[in-house]
Amino acid sequence: METRTEISSLGEFGLIKRINEGVSTQLPDTVKGIGDDAAVIDNGEDFGLLSSDFFLEGVHFDLTFFPLKHLGYKVIAAAVSDIAAMNGIPRQVIVNVALSNRFSVEAVDELYLGIKTACRDFNVDLTGGDTASSRTGLLISVSVLGRVKKDRIAYRNTAKPNDLLCVSGDLGGAYLGLQLLEREKQVFLVNPQMQPELDGKDYVIQRQLRPEARMDVVYELEEAGVIPTAMIDVSDGLASDLLHLCAQSGVGAVIFEDRLPIDDQSFLAASELNIGAITAALNGGEDYELLFTVSQSDYEKIRNNPKITFIGYMTDNKEEVVLHTKSDNRVPVTAQGWSNV
Amino acid sequence: METRTEISSLGEFGLIKRINEGVSTQLPDTVKGIGDDAAVIDNGEDFGLLSSDFFLEGVHFDLTFFPLKHLGYKVIAAAVSDIAAMNGIPRQVIVNVALSNRFSVEAVDELYLGIKTACRDFNVDLTGGDTASSRTGLLISVSVLGRVKKDRIAYRNTAKPNDLLCVSGDLGGAYLGLQLLEREKQVFLVNPQMQPELDGKDYVIQRQLRPEARMDVVYELEEAGVIPTAMIDVSDGLASDLLHLCAQSGVGAVIFEDRLPIDDQSFLAASELNIGAITAALNGGEDYELLFTVSQSDYEKIRNNPKITFIGYMTDNKEEVVLHTKSDNRVPVTAQGWSNV
Repeated sequence: METRTEISSLGEFGLIKRINEGVSTQLPDTVKGIGDDAAVIDNGEDFGLLSSDFFLEGVHFDLTFFPLKHLGYKVIAAAVSDIAAMNGIPRQVIVNVALSNRFSVEAVDELYLGIKTACRDFNVDLTGGDTASSRTGLLISVSVLGRVKKDRIAYRNTAKPNDLLCVSGDLGGAYLGLQLLEREKQVFLVNPQMQPELDGKDYVIQRQLRPEARMDVVYELEEAGVIPTAMIDVSDGLASDLLHLCAQSGVGAVIFEDRLPIDDQSFLAASELNIGAITAALNGGEDYELLFTVSQSDYEKIRNNPKITFIGYMTDNKEEVVLHTKSDNRVPVTAQGWSNV
Repeated sequence: METRTEISSLGEFGLIKRINEGVSTQLPDTVKGIGDDAAVIDNGEDFGLLSSDFFLEGVHFDLTFFPLKHLGYKVIAAAVSDIAAMNGIPRQVIVNVALSNRFSVEAVDELYLGIKTACRDFNVDLTGGDTASSRTGLLISVSVLGRVKKDRIAYRNTAKPNDLLCVSGDLGGAYLGLQLLEREKQVFLVNPQMQPELDGKDYVIQRQLRPEARMDVVYELEEAGVIPTAMIDVSDGLASDLLHLCAQSGVGAVIFEDRLPIDDQSFLAASELNIGAITAALNGGEDYELLFTVSQSDYEKIRNNPKITFIGYMTDNKEEVVLHTKSDNRVPVTAQGWSNV
């Protein structure tokens, strides 16, 4: 009898590890294969950056509250964020879209309005894509090609002990926005006459529905003369992405609870939803902020940038990635990926 | 009331046309955006080539008869074929895979065995990919990055009147293989005790289940000192792909029925299935052969290559893409893409 091992027994990261076993790159122009936000290709004059992601209805987004125009914008922003995470500049995107017959031509127009708006905002060219019919809703795959000067690239695996850890923007908002939208959906399902109660919640809703990739921060780091020693974007949540950065760099980290940047609206939403704001900041995903390390000597150059917050530092104890709490305890940072349902 | 236009009223190519309306490229390194087998990016020393395609269970493949190992091989071959169609060399691939809980870890291993085998055979590096959970079976998106010397690139839109039209390999086999597999599936559903009758049909079955991208032809054209004046891969079917090539080049074409390369097994399978072999050659897809034009002065250099068949020529009458039949009639070549079901 054949063995059957459930994917759920491995989890997302276990599955990825298994897939990647025995994969090595052979070509001289492949500088970096699996394991970072983007693959790195030697183009001679500079490095090319290649990344691709899925966005699947019912898994990654819920169209009962996610406007197609915003979805189109978000999938491009998320792709751009992968290039930003390498300290690179996005250039070309290819968008594959599969649709069931539930979708009208007008719906496709809305989706592409968002895609094209994001392409203009992030200064990338839409250069192609496959279209297909789908049996099950809307399926999107976005591939992005970027560029980075060879001496400016930032990998995940190059953080050093004593480097300072920084994050752009604020954390947890996208997750809290999603929880609010889910709650309003449930209210609506029970009573379609109810109006959504989203007054004063525009910021967290926007964080979920229309995130921005932090290209502004990439440019400002360059203007400040700073190259991060390592970088990743916060797409799975601070905890998960910090653990990736530490594991791949072979370092530990201490982050300070009272340094985590959380917007006032996020605090209010967290309170209303009975979710810890710190928990949302640590484990909520989709913020698309940049998490990066800099050498201490570079810190002065960025410390006055209001978009950047110092949240901790790297250590040589790779077994220890901890949150230093307000009450001066240290608790391990833990994370999880998706599990196959 | 909002207007609702069904996608089926536009069809695949109408939808693509609508999506692409108003899309133009802005960046100086985007040499070619939408409209060819791959986007073309100026890397300085050479051109980069970027393409991405969907492979969706229930739409593009049926796992009741498609072994996962072969599927893994095929999705890479199809991606490589898009680079071959630009006269380029594939370098890096990224494979996004989404799975429902129907799939075991062993199934994922089989799929990746095929993917990794194809990567080795075609000399490309597997450099990343997204994994996700899916509500509906197996979803795959493959992105490929290739390279081509600037003076060797072959576009779709550069065929000239009086160029000779050539195709590699033979046509229709992949489609006929699929029809045989579909037939055996129906037989099996009625009577699970029946053994599949696929003796002597190994070639057409293989054309469906384990197609090859014609990198050998790309290399042999280079050795022969020939640059195609235009090229496309035969993925939708000869008729459809020839019409693309003609429309984009602004030329017409005459192809000769008695020149279409059809394998003996394909003739036998077509006869058994009551399908015209010529119809299969014209409208059956997934052969992944190369359809290309050469200037008449280059033809001598490749005429003795047994992998290449001269099937017609290009004309200056862009309104007329015709099949010259064995009975000396001329019938218009017509094609269709998928329609949204």
